Amino acid sequence: MTGDIGKVICDITISVDGYSAGLGQTEERPFGDDGGDGTGERLHAWMFDTPDENRAEVERLGAAGAFIMGRNMFGPVRGAWDRRWNGWWGDSPPFHAPVFVLTHHAREPQPMDGGTTFFFVTDGIESALAQARAAADGGDVGIQGGATTVNQYLAAGLVDELRLHIVPLTLGAGTRLFEGVPPLNLEQVGSRAASLVTHLTYRVRS
Amino acid sequence: MTGDIGKVICDITISVDGYSAGLGQTEERPFGDDGGDGTGERLHAWMFDTPDENRAEVERLGAAGAFIMGRNMFGPVRGAWDRRWNGWWGDSPPFHAPVFVLTHHAREPQPMDGGTTFFFVTDGIESALAQARAAADGGDVGIQGGATTVNQYLAAGLVDELRLHIVPLTLGAGTRLFEGVPPLNLEQVGSRAASLVTHLTYRVRS
Repeated sequence: MTGDIGKVICDITISVDGYSAGLGQTEERPFGDDGGDGTGERLHAWMFDTPDENRAEVERLGAAGAFIMGRNMFGPVRGAWDRRWNGWWGDSPPFHAPVFVLTHHAREPQPMDGGTTFFFVTDGIESALAQARAAADGGDVGIQGGATTVNQYLAAGLVDELRLHIVPLTLGAGTRLFEGVPPLNLEQVGSRAASLVTHLTYRVRS
Repeated sequence: MTGDIGKVICDITISVDGYSAGLGQTEERPFGDDGGDGTGERLHAWMFDTPDENRAEVERLGAAGAFIMGRNMFGPVRGAWDRRWNGWWGDSPPFHAPVFVLTHHAREPQPMDGGTTFFFVTDGIESALAQARAAADGGDVGIQGGATTVNQYLAAGLVDELRLHIVPLTLGAGTRLFEGVPPLNLEQVGSRAASLVTHLTYRVRS
């Protein structure tokens, strides 16, 4: 925490060449050409195959008071909300907090089991951040992704801390973290190796 | 070493967004728009400002039996060798071994003080590797860079080990490691954090 308000944190898993997802994403293959079956299981093997080794990082991932995500991370529906879609995570999503979804199409808030409510924000990233800050009530705000959304917040200078989980594969193409973001001056404040990943934490200097 | 022959190792310092040099490289600013004065001093601060902390990695960098580099890493001369240029490193370069420079323009070998000799290879990366292997005499071959040269060897499947030194800044544009390289399957075999850098070592799986 900096003073009375929480930090804005981006926490994202990327390949060594900087991609958070491959090309050709679909509902069946939300991570597209990810070198596997499109479910991102290779990118996220560190979470699912070695949870004990990475418990601290997984717990930190869920510790924010509110979250922000892009619409493509929320789901495959494009354009108007013409079909029922409440995220990839089933009836009880793992956020247990308000989640602000960036979209161009208005929709009523969607409460879920376990304390998660999806709010749909149509007036831009700064509005979403203001709403998330208010909802977090002094806690941190987590920018969940995907990389396109993270890049927008980085380019706008709105991020305090960047937590990267770098996994041992390259994708060669896809959605790339830092794409189009002006140069950043970072301070490495943490770095830890596990067997399937290296965790890097940077403070973004203004 | 794998059997009787040494490994082919790429050892390169990159920004968090994957660049080994910025745009706009010149003789006075060999690293171009690197966020500093163009000499790459910010990218390589880990070597020069904290040598004790990174002694093992610096020693490994110089341990190969022969080296390969691209012409742009060797110097700013383009086209024919119409001016005297023996590298950026003065009369006694830090390689102390044969260095094979990839170029389209033939030139006689250039011996230097301290055991370095620059050889100029005009018939491609595989020829340069064969010559370097022979010169290394069972030792490792180090692909020194820049990223364009490393990418050619990675794309050709000729690299055994990748050693990355990831430093806490982004450049936003420039010469990017992995650009145009098909997806790679890596094994993380080492990862170590120092104050100004994180060192990652990957075995490239075939």
